[in-house]
Amino acid sequence: MLTHAGCVERRNRLWEHLPASVEWVLVADPRHVYYLSGFLVQPLSFSVNERGWLLLERNGPTTLLADNFTRRSALAAPFVDVEELEPWYDHKHSVINRDHALLAALARVAPRLRSRQGVIEGHWLPVLAGELVPTGSSRFTAGSGAVGTLGDLLKTLRRNKHADEIATLEQAMRACAAGHSAALATVRPGVTEFDVYRAIHAGVLAQAEKPVQIYGDFRSTNAETPKRGGAPTDYVLQAGDLYLLDYSVIVDGYRSDFTNTVCAGEPSVDQRRLFDLCVEALAAGESSLRAGVPAVSVYRATAAPLRASPFGETFTHHAGHGLGMAHPEPPILVADSTDVLEAGDVVTLEPGLYVPGIGGIRLEHNYLITETGSRRLSPHRLALENSQQADSFDIPLEPSTS
Amino acid sequence: MLTHAGCVERRNRLWEHLPASVEWVLVADPRHVYYLSGFLVQPLSFSVNERGWLLLERNGPTTLLADNFTRRSALAAPFVDVEELEPWYDHKHSVINRDHALLAALARVAPRLRSRQGVIEGHWLPVLAGELVPTGSSRFTAGSGAVGTLGDLLKTLRRNKHADEIATLEQAMRACAAGHSAALATVRPGVTEFDVYRAIHAGVLAQAEKPVQIYGDFRSTNAETPKRGGAPTDYVLQAGDLYLLDYSVIVDGYRSDFTNTVCAGEPSVDQRRLFDLCVEALAAGESSLRAGVPAVSVYRATAAPLRASPFGETFTHHAGHGLGMAHPEPPILVADSTDVLEAGDVVTLEPGLYVPGIGGIRLEHNYLITETGSRRLSPHRLALENSQQADSFDIPLEPSTS
Repeated sequence: MLTHAGCVERRNRLWEHLPASVEWVLVADPRHVYYLSGFLVQPLSFSVNERGWLLLERNGPTTLLADNFTRRSALAAPFVDVEELEPWYDHKHSVINRDHALLAALARVAPRLRSRQGVIEGHWLPVLAGELVPTGSSRFTAGSGAVGTLGDLLKTLRRNKHADEIATLEQAMRACAAGHSAALATVRPGVTEFDVYRAIHAGVLAQAEKPVQIYGDFRSTNAETPKRGGAPTDYVLQAGDLYLLDYSVIVDGYRSDFTNTVCAGEPSVDQRRLFDLCVEALAAGESSLRAGVPAVSVYRATAAPLRASPFGETFTHHAGHGLGMAHPEPPILVADSTDVLEAGDVVTLEPGLYVPGIGGIRLEHNYLITETGSRRLSPHRLALENSQQADSFDIPLEPSTS
Repeated sequence: MLTHAGCVERRNRLWEHLPASVEWVLVADPRHVYYLSGFLVQPLSFSVNERGWLLLERNGPTTLLADNFTRRSALAAPFVDVEELEPWYDHKHSVINRDHALLAALARVAPRLRSRQGVIEGHWLPVLAGELVPTGSSRFTAGSGAVGTLGDLLKTLRRNKHADEIATLEQAMRACAAGHSAALATVRPGVTEFDVYRAIHAGVLAQAEKPVQIYGDFRSTNAETPKRGGAPTDYVLQAGDLYLLDYSVIVDGYRSDFTNTVCAGEPSVDQRRLFDLCVEALAAGESSLRAGVPAVSVYRATAAPLRASPFGETFTHHAGHGLGMAHPEPPILVADSTDVLEAGDVVTLEPGLYVPGIGGIRLEHNYLITETGSRRLSPHRLALENSQQADSFDIPLEPSTS
């Protein structure tokens, strides 16, 4: 869960990056409203798809704009000074178009904005809202002379994760890992992909102890079809199938994203070989992680053990990417990346091999980038074989690299 | 799942309601893009929170605008003639701000729009997109002389559900009902609210056989606290607690919303009385449903059996509301509603009593409004007591009222 202190820190960082002439900012991307105020429409609520906007004033209050019913669906009480809530529904009267209610909330604060220079989030603030604040511009000129948008700036700032964001990511990681444990105990010949998916759901929920979102790849591979992704099916796992579990759990808006591959029944010698190569690639990539390192170096380090094998040409996707409130995010860990790792980045590493005649294996961990290395955030066990071993993820992990 | 035929029907209805001078329409509310094209970003996917827009031309193609990666996360192949997809991510290079990619897709079609009159969905299309299509207006004048917005019009049209929408709603209903069965088999003293929530999840998933979203009220009530809602907790159910399960399942963008209340252990005489009153209220409300009936009449019919009891003043919320891609939607079934039922409306009825000293009971069914009455869509069993009875929801229901 984001904290008041974290939201204040992020707002201060934002103001530091805006020209001094900008007196107010109107934020509209739901992720950025959340990032700066803690206000998020619970995605599992009746108000999913509805919105609130956030008004920041350099020398004034922080104001949430919403209809009263959307506010009711907040994940938690927002860290704002004022809530301009338009009554939309009262259990007594018919309702108007809910979007008009949100505009009405904005209309209440618009008069005090008109005489002062502001910046609107033009990638998300709708046209009808923009008409209410005519002196707001979608672009500003930074100190460097470069013209930017609020969205560009906020997406850049988002790379450097604050303490409350990392704590939230760790919650998501623990829940995701509990799902991987459940999968390890469930995958065997005779169960369906969907059976395992349900076991993962149950495991994640039991750990998270709150509603979460789960998505990703839940498809098995085999000698004939070594690469496959997407939603689980009714397919019944056969001995020797490799169930590739690459999924994310979203807790309070922040996403885990890590993988294990489990064999139904006894893996073959070749399958073990692919698994071991991916373990090696992961270790090589991990050892390359550090603030200041070019993303392309991480890609090369991860790919090297795979490329040195006879199967290297089947590793065709990224070595990993940034993670947070979206997926994928910079830095992108690919062959032609121009990104550079920064302290505060959270990234995945996900080497994989997909070999006709053998099957597909992918393994993945998530890491926080530090000045001196990285800290592994994903606490799951990488294991190719079914196992009933009890895993506990209640205790936050220690740093893996100092 | 929405169908091609349904999307074409809805587009034709939209054109019929727009002035003949309007030659193109740019749709931006994700629900309306889906409604008219079948394109929905799978909400359980890496692209959740990303968007596509839809360009309709009266005498031209239907065009989806998106970045290539958002397109990959579509629920199903969209029913459009052209896909203008901006390459955003290729597993080889760094990425730009994803919102710029969407604008770039729009910029490809913008030149052919500039000389012709169009309407943009100004409640959702962002300011920076509006700048690309300067002859697009957020408002149009209908034949009646009334000035409207695209959002107003589409929300009105959405009330009249098409066959593919009803089929999708029924899928959501069957999944929701399977969760209620699981709850009936699970609620007893000693289990937690969260245990039951997990059982509901498992039941819903087993029936739906695809990823779904589940949200609602999963809180128990008792003599001291007869009304409570929200996410489930670790609270251990005690004998006599009433577990009020009012939740929705979203399948392919469409929502069920129905309720049952289950007693942990043996219900008291008073609890049975509240339950029976709610059954009676539901039947009374149901018998009032028909196209042309004022919503307030439905409210009164539903409330009457409750008001005639000693507990009537505890029924303080709505008798129900419309349902579809949002929650609540018109018609609103309340004391001062000005709405009138229309054929094609899908509504809930949800009488409830919350009595200090006894506890809270709410029951709820969902109905399709027809010219002659209604058809009950929700197939769950209303039952106050734990039961292992096997329910099957695989067969669509027969009309309950002809």
